[in-house]
Amino acid sequence: MPRPFLIDTDAGSDDAVAILMALRCADVDVRAITVVAGNVPLPQGLVNSLYFTELCDTDVPVHAGAAGPMLREYVSADWFHGADGLGDWGDRYQPQRATASDMHAIDAIIETARSTEDLVIVTLGPLTNLALALSKAPDIVPLVSRCVVMGGAACTNGNVTPAAEYNIWCDPEAARIVFRSGLPIEMVGWEFSIGEFVLSLDDIEFVRSIKTPYADFTIDCNINGMRGYEIQTGEIGISLPDGVAMAVAIDPTICTASSHHYVDVECDSELTRGMTVVDKLNLADDERNQPVWRQLLSTANQPSICWELDASRWKALLYQLLR
Amino acid sequence: MPRPFLIDTDAGSDDAVAILMALRCADVDVRAITVVAGNVPLPQGLVNSLYFTELCDTDVPVHAGAAGPMLREYVSADWFHGADGLGDWGDRYQPQRATASDMHAIDAIIETARSTEDLVIVTLGPLTNLALALSKAPDIVPLVSRCVVMGGAACTNGNVTPAAEYNIWCDPEAARIVFRSGLPIEMVGWEFSIGEFVLSLDDIEFVRSIKTPYADFTIDCNINGMRGYEIQTGEIGISLPDGVAMAVAIDPTICTASSHHYVDVECDSELTRGMTVVDKLNLADDERNQPVWRQLLSTANQPSICWELDASRWKALLYQLLR
Amino acid sequence: MPRPFLIDTDAGSDDAVAILMALRCADVDVRAITVVAGNVPLPQGLVNSLYFTELCDTDVPVHAGAAGPMLREYVSADWFHGADGLGDWGDRYQPQRATASDMHAIDAIIETARSTEDLVIVTLGPLTNLALALSKAPDIVPLVSRCVVMGGAACTNGNVTPAAEYNIWCDPEAARIVFRSGLPIEMVGWEFSIGEFVLSLDDIEFVRSIKTPYADFTIDCNINGMRGYEIQTGEIGISLPDGVAMAVAIDPTICTASSHHYVDVECDSELTRGMTVVDKLNLADDERNQPVWRQLLSTANQPSICWELDASRWKALLYQLLR
Amino acid sequence: MPRPFLIDTDAGSDDAVAILMALRCADVDVRAITVVAGNVPLPQGLVNSLYFTELCDTDVPVHAGAAGPMLREYVSADWFHGADGLGDWGDRYQPQRATASDMHAIDAIIETARSTEDLVIVTLGPLTNLALALSKAPDIVPLVSRCVVMGGAACTNGNVTPAAEYNIWCDPEAARIVFRSGLPIEMVGWEFSIGEFVLSLDDIEFVRSIKTPYADFTIDCNINGMRGYEIQTGEIGISLPDGVAMAVAIDPTICTASSHHYVDVECDSELTRGMTVVDKLNLADDERNQPVWRQLLSTANQPSICWELDASRWKALLYQLLR
Repeated sequence: MPRPFLIDTDAGSDDAVAILMALRCADVDVRAITVVAGNVPLPQGLVNSLYFTELCDTDVPVHAGAAGPMLREYVSADWFHGADGLGDWGDRYQPQRATASDMHAIDAIIETARSTEDLVIVTLGPLTNLALALSKAPDIVPLVSRCVVMGGAACTNGNVTPAAEYNIWCDPEAARIVFRSGLPIEMVGWEFSIGEFVLSLDDIEFVRSIKTPYADFTIDCNINGMRGYEIQTGEIGISLPDGVAMAVAIDPTICTASSHHYVDVECDSELTRGMTVVDKLNLADDERNQPVWRQLLSTANQPSICWELDASRWKALLYQLLR
Repeated sequence: MPRPFLIDTDAGSDDAVAILMALRCADVDVRAITVVAGNVPLPQGLVNSLYFTELCDTDVPVHAGAAGPMLREYVSADWFHGADGLGDWGDRYQPQRATASDMHAIDAIIETARSTEDLVIVTLGPLTNLALALSKAPDIVPLVSRCVVMGGAACTNGNVTPAAEYNIWCDPEAARIVFRSGLPIEMVGWEFSIGEFVLSLDDIEFVRSIKTPYADFTIDCNINGMRGYEIQTGEIGISLPDGVAMAVAIDPTICTASSHHYVDVECDSELTRGMTVVDKLNLADDERNQPVWRQLLSTANQPSICWELDASRWKALLYQLLR
Repeated sequence: MPRPFLIDTDAGSDDAVAILMALRCADVDVRAITVVAGNVPLPQGLVNSLYFTELCDTDVPVHAGAAGPMLREYVSADWFHGADGLGDWGDRYQPQRATASDMHAIDAIIETARSTEDLVIVTLGPLTNLALALSKAPDIVPLVSRCVVMGGAACTNGNVTPAAEYNIWCDPEAARIVFRSGLPIEMVGWEFSIGEFVLSLDDIEFVRSIKTPYADFTIDCNINGMRGYEIQTGEIGISLPDGVAMAVAIDPTICTASSHHYVDVECDSELTRGMTVVDKLNLADDERNQPVWRQLLSTANQPSICWELDASRWKALLYQLLR
Repeated sequence: MPRPFLIDTDAGSDDAVAILMALRCADVDVRAITVVAGNVPLPQGLVNSLYFTELCDTDVPVHAGAAGPMLREYVSADWFHGADGLGDWGDRYQPQRATASDMHAIDAIIETARSTEDLVIVTLGPLTNLALALSKAPDIVPLVSRCVVMGGAACTNGNVTPAAEYNIWCDPEAARIVFRSGLPIEMVGWEFSIGEFVLSLDDIEFVRSIKTPYADFTIDCNINGMRGYEIQTGEIGISLPDGVAMAVAIDPTICTASSHHYVDVECDSELTRGMTVVDKLNLADDERNQPVWRQLLSTANQPSICWELDASRWKALLYQLLR
């Protein structure tokens, strides 16, 4: 029986690939897509998400959520993903029939968690929707089977500031709520969307050769993001953070090394705003550090941090699902 | 002609090794040792530093400096280095004749910088003394040739909190002053005192076989620290952060990869206090990040960050100087 | 026609008085009571609120809301209000028939705002429920006619820390969301529950002489709080912050001097956590201060700050409503 | 025998009046003037201070100190005091003979404290110099008899941000060091330079009628500041914060109500940066607040906060000293 997924997304070009992967995976049953402001503003994110469902010929309900972070000014990532989040192709990617659900994303998350056994939540954007759902209904924590988070950077540098990755930086308070919630988080950081994890020019050519609408869409909507990625890192290729996280959600063995640690999110300082502080050396309960980590020390579940990931298997899974 | 060094130290057991290296290096002329509260309280640090000079049969002046951080509560590292900072050998390591200078460390730094061409400053402890010297006499910045800093952790985790290394954590405001000062900093982070950079059991046996007072002292005063290091990291061996930094100060080619970046030190948040935030991807002058990094963007010199270090050459230099 | 009120409460002993005032005011139609963790934990707050409705013989729906602040550890005020929030009278104040609504407080706030013309919201506790409602449904802002907030301290000291009043301190992020929302806030700070605004021993004797259940309950449930208030301020009397705010909600002319200002809530520092920073001298848009106040400068409505309040009229209104 | 004073100043137009008062007071022996960047940059402050000594025909040594705050960007107050700090009179106020001492202000403070019995320190600007002196020589704390600080705002709003007064805001870390040092501080906040404490138009006319160079200089160098003060507060008059503080230094009975409290200075948040948080209700050692106030709770001396001040006596003292 396919596993039930709920995908929370900010509907940019790498979200597109991740959602395609899930919708096309026979082993996965996407129960709901909840949309949050992030890479693109909420209305565009809704349009994009509805388009994804049509492209895959499904009728997964799409729910509108938060139009911006809980406390911070909303900052999109259109410089990277284009104004439409999908590489600026004008009106090429418009849904024809699908419309958004009347239910708010917060309630969709709560209802789905309450009504679904072994639910897997996959978050591809800022964690605003999930944090608000947890604030309204903390009882859903033990009902969720896995919560795979594309976000953060574990003991390394970020992509939007030297300390932070975009999804967490965008709404750090929401991320703090989620990471402190006790949800069974599996964090897949930005470090798995650079270097060998990027689609190289050869990889891109290979995807083109697949010649399905899914494969073409994957490249088309991400091709413009190559420029942003090169500016950011100096590397050439298509970076797909959300695709990598979805690969782990679909096949957890693609993450080849992980461990559980206390993780907190920096919310007090502008310099390190949104940093995912991972307690790799188990220092949080040192006498010295206890006051700072107190709220976390009583949490039942510590997030699982992905430390190593099989690049070739992630790409193999991607290619398979694009056929 | 030997190069003039000024060493600022908190006189723990790895400082001991670093100072021995410098005092025994024919190519180095240690002009002054300035002592700061850190691993051990200031009075113990003075005793230790005077002992180091006697052990090496020199009369380098030793100057007392700050008895604690600029703003923070003083927290020693005696749990690691022992109450005497040298492994708790009772009164074994007492200076017999040497006494501290009357001049304050702050003035010693200023005077030495003003009177010495091509001065190399090496800091092995919290940066309180150097920060106060810079606050009193900012004119010394262009007079310093190199400033090698053992401290921080570049795009990785720390040893005292998940985000910070002890020297920087201990007095983050001082570190911020120093890193923002424009001094030609070469940062050697804590990441070069773990793993292959640690003296293994074989390495320790080898140092024992050297059979000089310097070699024996190196092992004796650090042997108790192995317990602390194992607690911290799970690794077995002698970790010598200050020795590694001194190796780079003596022979810069031991650092095999480095680059210049803006670096700021977190001072506003308890969670990330003392983190050395290294702008590895050159994000500091992104429109989004400019307000936070403004004070730094006008700085002439960016610190040089050590990214790779030749472990075998660091150990070879150590062994050579212990003979 | 009576004006429609929604009361958000943390159901302590001064909330009791405020809610009695509203329920007994012919000119007010309380449409809903939403309960939030604050003075007492949520379950006790529900019990208390249901009791209040029974005491006044109404069937106003009571809705459970947030069981704690959005991000902070929950800290009750039981040292002041007693374990039951009503002066530790054991099981004296138990509702007999009334039960809480199935609708979550967040949705009750949203639904009531959407369905009610000229709604007046009165908040007597931490602002968690209202902040979550605004996060879920920002469209309700222009639908609210007035939002009277008991909370904060305008350009003076607080009661829970030197900088902050309890309601705001308890959930500062929620307060920031509410104060930045553009809601037509009327802030009645803690400074109007000390000195002449306190029920003196004579006042208490007078209320006793009224000899209604409402008058007796007012004194009974607040009499134990006199000890806490004396510890806090050195003054003798019954301090009724929520009663004063409700008096202003019922009769705005009791506030005799007020003006509109930008107000922000401190969320980054532990020292000043929860301070309501009121821009009394209109400094927020000074070039120097613009970066800090940027998010607020674009807000349409600035909160109205109560600067002076007619103590005798507040007491007269109280007495009248207790008959 | 006249009492020994050391005056630390940022040499703006109200500092001018304060220094004149001290230099002309038979009961005061000004031992040293130390200059700090604040209202005007350091070089201008030196020029001004030397001019003040010449105007009063004394040879008090003038020492240059810090050219900017310890950690923050330097921001002058030239918009208020003029580019020269004295109302933009061009080169009218130039010293003819006097030159600055070779000794750094930090050392002047330390030396004077060590060599002078019953020294009174009066600070009229940012506390950078005094903080650095305390950092270098904490032993001077018990040697100082009084330390009168013009700065901060006690439980009220500030003048440079809604939370902070300029002197403390300018270098909050320095202020924190000083307020936590245990020095016998008497804080005279900005609230005593508004309203009745301001020189009204009648007062100004009266000072003009004194017809001494001191009286004329007092009005001339402050007349342009009236515009800034009106912009800030809407009030008409000459505001002389430093003059008021000096009046208290000369005659402590002018302060008619004061009490000792823990005071901390906000350094972590931009919103409340430089706020002087006064623990008026003795909440600092509440269990809840102890972690935040820990460093202060062990301090021997709590600053004395001036709560009431006799406006007519301050003006009377001023007039007397201008004759």
